[in-house]
Amino acid sequence: MRLTSTALLFLLLLISCNSLAIKPQLLGRHTVQTYPHHTSVSYKTFYFDQQIDHFGFLENGTFKQRYLLNDQHWHKEGGPILFYTGNEGDITWFCNNTGFMWDVAERLGAMLVFAEHRYYGESMPFGDESYSNAKYLNFLTSEQALADFAVLIKALKTTLPGAQKSSVIAIGGSYGGMLAAWLRMKYPSAVVGALAASAPIWQFIVPCGEFYKVVTHDFTISGTNCSSNIRRSWAAIDRVSATGEGLQWLSQEFGLCSSLKTPDEVYGFKAWLQETWVNLAMVDYPYEANFLQPLPAWPVKVVCKSLNFDTGVSDKQLLNGISQAIKVYYNYTGDAVCLNTSQTATGNLGFLGWYYQSCTEMVMPMCTDGIIDMFEPQSWNFQAFSDECYNQFGVRPREDWAEIVYGGRNISAHSNIIFSNGNLDPWMSGGVTTSLSESLVAIMIDGGAHHLDLRYNNKLDPESVIKTRELEVRYFKEWLKQAATTQ
Amino acid sequence: MRLTSTALLFLLLLISCNSLAIKPQLLGRHTVQTYPHHTSVSYKTFYFDQQIDHFGFLENGTFKQRYLLNDQHWHKEGGPILFYTGNEGDITWFCNNTGFMWDVAERLGAMLVFAEHRYYGESMPFGDESYSNAKYLNFLTSEQALADFAVLIKALKTTLPGAQKSSVIAIGGSYGGMLAAWLRMKYPSAVVGALAASAPIWQFIVPCGEFYKVVTHDFTISGTNCSSNIRRSWAAIDRVSATGEGLQWLSQEFGLCSSLKTPDEVYGFKAWLQETWVNLAMVDYPYEANFLQPLPAWPVKVVCKSLNFDTGVSDKQLLNGISQAIKVYYNYTGDAVCLNTSQTATGNLGFLGWYYQSCTEMVMPMCTDGIIDMFEPQSWNFQAFSDECYNQFGVRPREDWAEIVYGGRNISAHSNIIFSNGNLDPWMSGGVTTSLSESLVAIMIDGGAHHLDLRYNNKLDPESVIKTRELEVRYFKEWLKQAATTQ
Repeated sequence: MRLTSTALLFLLLLISCNSLAIKPQLLGRHTVQTYPHHTSVSYKTFYFDQQIDHFGFLENGTFKQRYLLNDQHWHKEGGPILFYTGNEGDITWFCNNTGFMWDVAERLGAMLVFAEHRYYGESMPFGDESYSNAKYLNFLTSEQALADFAVLIKALKTTLPGAQKSSVIAIGGSYGGMLAAWLRMKYPSAVVGALAASAPIWQFIVPCGEFYKVVTHDFTISGTNCSSNIRRSWAAIDRVSATGEGLQWLSQEFGLCSSLKTPDEVYGFKAWLQETWVNLAMVDYPYEANFLQPLPAWPVKVVCKSLNFDTGVSDKQLLNGISQAIKVYYNYTGDAVCLNTSQTATGNLGFLGWYYQSCTEMVMPMCTDGIIDMFEPQSWNFQAFSDECYNQFGVRPREDWAEIVYGGRNISAHSNIIFSNGNLDPWMSGGVTTSLSESLVAIMIDGGAHHLDLRYNNKLDPESVIKTRELEVRYFKEWLKQAATTQ
Repeated sequence: MRLTSTALLFLLLLISCNSLAIKPQLLGRHTVQTYPHHTSVSYKTFYFDQQIDHFGFLENGTFKQRYLLNDQHWHKEGGPILFYTGNEGDITWFCNNTGFMWDVAERLGAMLVFAEHRYYGESMPFGDESYSNAKYLNFLTSEQALADFAVLIKALKTTLPGAQKSSVIAIGGSYGGMLAAWLRMKYPSAVVGALAASAPIWQFIVPCGEFYKVVTHDFTISGTNCSSNIRRSWAAIDRVSATGEGLQWLSQEFGLCSSLKTPDEVYGFKAWLQETWVNLAMVDYPYEANFLQPLPAWPVKVVCKSLNFDTGVSDKQLLNGISQAIKVYYNYTGDAVCLNTSQTATGNLGFLGWYYQSCTEMVMPMCTDGIIDMFEPQSWNFQAFSDECYNQFGVRPREDWAEIVYGGRNISAHSNIIFSNGNLDPWMSGGVTTSLSESLVAIMIDGGAHHLDLRYNNKLDPESVIKTRELEVRYFKEWLKQAATTQ
């Protein structure tokens, strides 16, 4: 079951496979969505015919890749294109959660394009059947996604009047940030540079305990006894759930939609808690926000207020604190009737697709030891992971492939990539956090959670992220100037 | 039939599919071959387990990739690895025809590795069945071949004692040179630099007439009236072959193994002549050599001696000259009993595999107009080409893919690649012939034919190629120094 946990971690979660369906082709569908106090999000929706298989010629079919486009601020004949390299979810959700691009479009005279990743949202290579078997899933890889982006960029530049001279900058966050960096690495003719925000491109090769160490650290600094009480909670759950009465108390205390009955369910309950702590660390933003869930400002601090007691408390007192803390995440709005342990975040993300990707090339070893982190000890077992993947999808992960294809730590031959990371974000453990050259630049955002820099400007933004965004725009301008002189 | 001609052109030709068979794994088979006056070629043969499909996980089978290794001059703990990126043929043939690597190994303290390209020589993903259908052929692409090289390099560096610190330099000629350049572009973590000799990486995008223009120019400068007499020969063949007697005369005059009877056969005969002129231009070396065929020094000059008459001659006199010229290529040794129009070069090259590759991603438009070149006018017709590919293999070429995946003319973001070209080589028409940056260096070899620089030193080498090789070694050393300081 740890597999699920690992797979879930990455900008997670649980989207019902049945809900993934390709919609009829709607060229130029126009959507306007205005967020209070924010630049309005307004785009046209397009669908582009992509090869299902870029790397083989037997499968010559195509599918409709969705992309969103806004050109209201675009300076034709030379204005740049900011190109969001979509990650594992519905592209409209990433579009709405990447306010940075909307905030800077006017200053840069830029066109905005948000390209959906194949097998997510509406971009289904085999329609409703895309996830139905290993044969159809075979074209879900990062390499195919990068090729989609490169082909789409070429088509945009060729067919959009005035775009021939437009330089393209790739932008992405999380897995989308990895794709932005990789697009610049693998297709530097397509993009003049990339902003890879909170992109753990080294998560394949860093020690497996690093991720949870950062999660733990966030809770340690956010309140007295906070991480140590979470560390103690696992054994308390085991003790309390040893009896039928305890199980019932636990279910009621947490307000679970479905009561815990078996040891397996208790195991699942603990995995759900663990993911919740991880998610809280990821979205520990300095203002009220709704990314994975609606949350207050600095949610980890809020959570830790319920977890500041010392070691004298009983198991049930401790778990009451945990339950209060958890409800900050699941019921900040007060609308939740009960808590559902099969879901930890927004339904806009494609859990199953990401699970498949971790089961093939995106192998990110994760482990905990309960000492440097606040979780139950769990070692990384590649073989067991591989066996679970085989049972689930009929494929096995290739442990070394990501490092070979994307260069591992040896990426200094590349150029024009910004790696931004927040020091509160667990994913910074696999990120590039020190500059590798003059044009492979790392920016650390003090007090930043998961790709804070990609969010809308906010009056509660810390100075660090304001400066980061300024610096990012300065690099963009430098790349554009560079490209203009070499063209 | 022009399709065949185009496909044949590229370091051509006609290897019987049946002879392609995977041999049993012979680890460390030892071969010593000594060439008179040359450094001895001595290597061990190994077979490496490669994924059949690097870009999908459904096909999880492996095959044995052959590679040859010589470490007699290798300085362990830091000595470089010169890695030949095998092209479309038997790797032992490329090994024996890349004397440059053998000549410089001692000076550089280098290990030599020659890696065979999948689907050629003994490296057959599906054994004898590899060419039997479109499903098995589906994994024959340059991207898969590059991934093979990157994975093999990683394995060598990981498993060979002392190789961890060894930097790898990719070297290749012709399509192998394209692969060397692309390996550096796509996997710069695997190789610190690349020598791409006579590598027409832009043949996909240059005007279709360029190639034959260079061929023609070689004949124009090699003898009075030479190219103009070849230009006139096509109509002379048509006139002579219009009668039965003429056909018989033509067959006898050329000493053909099989007499010409139908217009289709005459068409094939002319295509064979055309390919012969191309091959002669490619191997116009300054000394006696045996690359595609055993030939005298400066073979184009020798050929042109039979073609120096003026316009006063009769058709048969003209064609007698053509026949004398052609026999320089096909019967320099005097051993040929008759000439076989279904073969134009060594049997070490994999015609069928290259035909498939041109029918998928390696789409190199070729055309002639009979004015700037000495050939019959023939336009480039992508649709007709595509249809022939579909009939032959059940796949269709993708016209723009090579440009997108390998960046077209916009490759300035890359580094540490030498593009060497000879001004006699038709393939220079698609090559990089002016430097693009300080580390993307073009070297033109005056009086050089197809990758002359990769051949053994020879006392008849022109000064240009001697200097070229010196410069290449100087760049190698610079890359190695660079790598040593950044490691």
